[in-house]
Amino acid sequence: MTNVSTLQSLIAGRWLGSEASTPLHSAVNNNLIYHTHAEKIDFDEAVTYARKTGVPALMKLDFQKRAGVLKALALYLMERKEELYKISQLTGATRPDSWVDVEGGIGTLFAYASMGSRELPSSNVLHEGPAMALGKRGGFAGTHILVPRGGLAVHINAFNFPIWGMLEKFAPSFLAAMPCIGKPATATSYLTEAVVRMMHESGLLPEGSFQLVIGSTGDLLDRLTGADAVTFTGSADTAAKLRVNKNLIANSVPFTAEADSLNCAILAPDVTPDDPEFDLFVKEVAREMTGKAGQKCTAIRRIIVPKQHVDAVAERLRDRLAKVVVGDPSMEGVRMGALASLDQHRDVSERVEMLARGNEIVFGARDGFKPVGEGVANGAFFSPTLLLCRDAMNNDAVHDVEAFGPVSTMMTYEGIDEALALAARGKGSLVSTLVTKEPAIAAYAVPIAAASHGRVHILEREAAVDSTGHGSPLPQLKHGGPGRAGGGEELGGIRAVRHFLQRAAVQGSPTMLAAVTGEYVRGAAVRESELHPFRKYFEDLQMGDSLLTHRRTVSEADIVAFGGISGDFFYMHFDEIAAKDSQFGKRIAHGYFVLSAAAGLFVSPAPGPVLANYGLDNLRFITPVAIGDTIRARLTCKRKVDRNRTDERGVGQGVVAWDVQVTNQNEELVASYDILTLVMKRS
Amino acid sequence: MTNVSTLQSLIAGRWLGSEASTPLHSAVNNNLIYHTHAEKIDFDEAVTYARKTGVPALMKLDFQKRAGVLKALALYLMERKEELYKISQLTGATRPDSWVDVEGGIGTLFAYASMGSRELPSSNVLHEGPAMALGKRGGFAGTHILVPRGGLAVHINAFNFPIWGMLEKFAPSFLAAMPCIGKPATATSYLTEAVVRMMHESGLLPEGSFQLVIGSTGDLLDRLTGADAVTFTGSADTAAKLRVNKNLIANSVPFTAEADSLNCAILAPDVTPDDPEFDLFVKEVAREMTGKAGQKCTAIRRIIVPKQHVDAVAERLRDRLAKVVVGDPSMEGVRMGALASLDQHRDVSERVEMLARGNEIVFGARDGFKPVGEGVANGAFFSPTLLLCRDAMNNDAVHDVEAFGPVSTMMTYEGIDEALALAARGKGSLVSTLVTKEPAIAAYAVPIAAASHGRVHILEREAAVDSTGHGSPLPQLKHGGPGRAGGGEELGGIRAVRHFLQRAAVQGSPTMLAAVTGEYVRGAAVRESELHPFRKYFEDLQMGDSLLTHRRTVSEADIVAFGGISGDFFYMHFDEIAAKDSQFGKRIAHGYFVLSAAAGLFVSPAPGPVLANYGLDNLRFITPVAIGDTIRARLTCKRKVDRNRTDERGVGQGVVAWDVQVTNQNEELVASYDILTLVMKRS
Repeated sequence: MTNVSTLQSLIAGRWLGSEASTPLHSAVNNNLIYHTHAEKIDFDEAVTYARKTGVPALMKLDFQKRAGVLKALALYLMERKEELYKISQLTGATRPDSWVDVEGGIGTLFAYASMGSRELPSSNVLHEGPAMALGKRGGFAGTHILVPRGGLAVHINAFNFPIWGMLEKFAPSFLAAMPCIGKPATATSYLTEAVVRMMHESGLLPEGSFQLVIGSTGDLLDRLTGADAVTFTGSADTAAKLRVNKNLIANSVPFTAEADSLNCAILAPDVTPDDPEFDLFVKEVAREMTGKAGQKCTAIRRIIVPKQHVDAVAERLRDRLAKVVVGDPSMEGVRMGALASLDQHRDVSERVEMLARGNEIVFGARDGFKPVGEGVANGAFFSPTLLLCRDAMNNDAVHDVEAFGPVSTMMTYEGIDEALALAARGKGSLVSTLVTKEPAIAAYAVPIAAASHGRVHILEREAAVDSTGHGSPLPQLKHGGPGRAGGGEELGGIRAVRHFLQRAAVQGSPTMLAAVTGEYVRGAAVRESELHPFRKYFEDLQMGDSLLTHRRTVSEADIVAFGGISGDFFYMHFDEIAAKDSQFGKRIAHGYFVLSAAAGLFVSPAPGPVLANYGLDNLRFITPVAIGDTIRARLTCKRKVDRNRTDERGVGQGVVAWDVQVTNQNEELVASYDILTLVMKRS
Repeated sequence: MTNVSTLQSLIAGRWLGSEASTPLHSAVNNNLIYHTHAEKIDFDEAVTYARKTGVPALMKLDFQKRAGVLKALALYLMERKEELYKISQLTGATRPDSWVDVEGGIGTLFAYASMGSRELPSSNVLHEGPAMALGKRGGFAGTHILVPRGGLAVHINAFNFPIWGMLEKFAPSFLAAMPCIGKPATATSYLTEAVVRMMHESGLLPEGSFQLVIGSTGDLLDRLTGADAVTFTGSADTAAKLRVNKNLIANSVPFTAEADSLNCAILAPDVTPDDPEFDLFVKEVAREMTGKAGQKCTAIRRIIVPKQHVDAVAERLRDRLAKVVVGDPSMEGVRMGALASLDQHRDVSERVEMLARGNEIVFGARDGFKPVGEGVANGAFFSPTLLLCRDAMNNDAVHDVEAFGPVSTMMTYEGIDEALALAARGKGSLVSTLVTKEPAIAAYAVPIAAASHGRVHILEREAAVDSTGHGSPLPQLKHGGPGRAGGGEELGGIRAVRHFLQRAAVQGSPTMLAAVTGEYVRGAAVRESELHPFRKYFEDLQMGDSLLTHRRTVSEADIVAFGGISGDFFYMHFDEIAAKDSQFGKRIAHGYFVLSAAAGLFVSPAPGPVLANYGLDNLRFITPVAIGDTIRARLTCKRKVDRNRTDERGVGQGVVAWDVQVTNQNEELVASYDILTLVMKRS
């Protein structure tokens, strides 16, 4: 074999490695395709580079700008995806398998770019408010902020999703301003190396924000501090080993594990073989057994069905599995490819033996199984294998032994409580699917299942049209489960970014809290604005710019007129008799009138930088407004977010939230709310 | 010594223990006061009791009802507080020290009762929404729920706050429906036993929800599963030992540590000896050094001051410390009591020796120190001790060695960056105080300090009037810090309850998600209500009850009339010329008109069960309403919360949130929001 490339690590901005070490083989035909490199990595250099170069470079940006980088990077990679699909075949993956890894990974970058832009500030302090008063005299308040930790993230990944696995962790930690050291599982590290090469060549990433380790992590973990973070995806055994690393323990380094688990699908007792849900169940199970040749940490390992339907399920599953063409994933018509390596093949075979003890094999031509394609005899192909356990409450192996391939075990139950007890025997799983037609069954079963599962997927005909499936973690939803599944949390929208930030409570005067959070806090000093704040451009507005309006006395005529225009003749406003008996003892003005009148007080009618009031949050009516009361409003610039956006006419604009307090003649708060506006930029 | 009581454990509902084992001594005079019991605890029984009796009893209640139990319990204990104060003296605590422990602990119960009632549902499923669409056809959506884990919580506590330490963990885990096994530090476990006796005698706690371990935890941790949780407060060494327990690691049992840390106070460079802030700083430091004889994990161990002010700070601190009367805490005028035991005294003495090496002792009469009071010669009294380190960047001990007593080290800096670097040398702390007059200094320094501190306290004259102080964790704010401080999070409002729940993503059709979360999800089936939903009593209303209103065509006359009554003549509504150039290209109706008209469409004018519309959330104006558009509203019962409340007239009422969608003639969403109402109960 000539011209076999040596993979390289990316350390301190340089590609390292030329001397060959561990050989890596194609999953399809066992040909030698790559070597890892023999050169040792200087992890002191890597860690120092991340701290001294990466952290400052990331902190020069803000949350919004880092979201912008993620988007640009996603676009860059998407244009080059075919190159990745090509390499991905060597892992044994079919095109749909690779889609999950390649486009799923890039899609996660897009998703975090978009969520970051929507939900994060244009600074490096994320305010987790609201601030709350901590004293009677208004001098002291408290709130929470989340800030970058100032450390680096080490992401250790599994072999099954070399691209997605790394990008789904990189995206949120990058938003959190953590430089990342990625360490893919060696067997398929060539695919990770390929995408990292693209990322590096893009020139889009700040210096020091990404490093790649091919091969062992050496003493990397011993060099981390409490400011850093480690994530791990892989087997529970390895997770347990890494988690007790002395240095990680001594420094309370956050360690997030996502481990393989024995996920299940439950066919609820209400579904009969004639229902479309019955077929949805069978289809979902077959798809999860064979997709990625069953090498997904979310794959369905346990198929929990009502005793009376087990034969019907078995028959339909057998039929489906028999039609799955296994072989060279590059061939037209092939539906399932190979396991990632012959090592995996050996491991899965052994575990199937363990599972088969005392149980029936319903499908799985262990003898005579032949994958299609040329020269694939030495590939790591494994037949889909379906087992049946008829006494699962008294069998430990089916709940404990995971064959990480196209292997699943059917088990039977009587009554939904037994089904849920079987599900819980997995001792914590990433995901379970419940197929039912009945909302009442879901309402009963899902909270119970949720106690031991990170995700619960409910499937019936209504959901089926759009369902993303049992096995797919989504950027918006939490990934990770309790117990055996590692107890970690990944993804789940901006939650994932928060996991990589450090939360601190902050206490002080409202003025100090406003300065620290970048958000106006009630009671803080305001800046009485000479110019009406609605006449200021985005760049000129400052948090705390404020307007105290003129006053307005509310009369009975206002109530009458407002009832007429709105059509709201509620007794509290119009029925003297009933209003007298009500909690307020008299007629009061409409809440919506107060809101409308407040807008009338603070509006600046001529065209100006404020383009639109697109929303309103946290409105509370506090003191009722009676006939004869006199109200006024205070409008204060609360928060500015620069999303680096322009409208279709090329006009730059930012989001500005305003604090509104409407008070009466006794300085009592009448109504309190935030309004959201888009404000033009000068340039 | 006769009649020395033997402390008892409360296991499986029975008090256990009569044979004496370890002797416990008064901190004040070293008299023998209690023994632990010699009988071994059957931890299998304890764990089984929690699982089989405690979990079901707690799950029979809901979040709201458990909040009610906490409130009743707090009232019960508050009536008996003097009994606890009396016992607390034996730990060496003064009355103000005991106040923190006794009333701080009971206050935490009150706080969680109140936060639980305000923020949690009247069910056992906490919906962490909003639900989001996951497909194009509306059939599939996702959201998150938090549910009780079905396991128990083991709370292992430190000796310094025998009551508060246990109650601050018990309260949130109780709300989360976890039975609790409390294990206080042996030295002061008699005080914990006393309060647990009261809790037990109150009869308020559901059976199985509380057990107490006096003495060793034996094999308790080896019996836990992934459904359980462990919290620990104490030394970093013990935390590290417990954290790597094989069983905890193998089952990913959540382990939260709160460890002592070397907290600091920074005097910012802007404060001069003439500022009131200078004295605030000195006072705060002295208070934290001597309160609870310095035995607080939040105490100030490092005093970081500008080089030019070190002598002034030292002088004023010395003066203050010299005035602190140390002695029998039951005596009038005594300001500081004893350390908790002679063991602690030995430990603190040794560590002061380590700190003193190469540093100056500014205050601390090691010889000739004599506490006041009779018969206190054998008590564990220790003089307040102030050290000075003049080269703290090159001294490890002052950042690493914690003397857990009235001991603190001054250190000097030049420039705020050096001050922050010194603060970070603590490698993760619970809290830091920054004394500054300048919001700009706070805005710069606090986010940097926040990266290595769980809480940052900003102090100046404005805050001082209300400040709760450097050392006091509050129920509303996060307690716990990164790195050396253990990396855990406690308190922080309802966050603490969430930590004890299990979060699961849920995917399915909107109808299924609504059934599971108990909250209407857009797209879910609605129940067209025969009776106007506003005419239904709280008990009769069901989530999903819905009203589609009649329609209303919006005319120019409406806009004109609404401008007149509100006073809002914004160009978008009134200036044909400017509106043509705007983003919408034409005049549109006021957003607040749409809101008011929608209320007019769905209001039911006569008196009925809906008592008040007290607020509105998440309002978004989506499609503008032009002249000639025809709008209608859909009002759907979204969420019901039964707080078990009645108004002053004895009328029961609950909170109901309604989903409102205003649409136009093209079925486009015009405005979307929730309204919040109080609804009467039938009974």
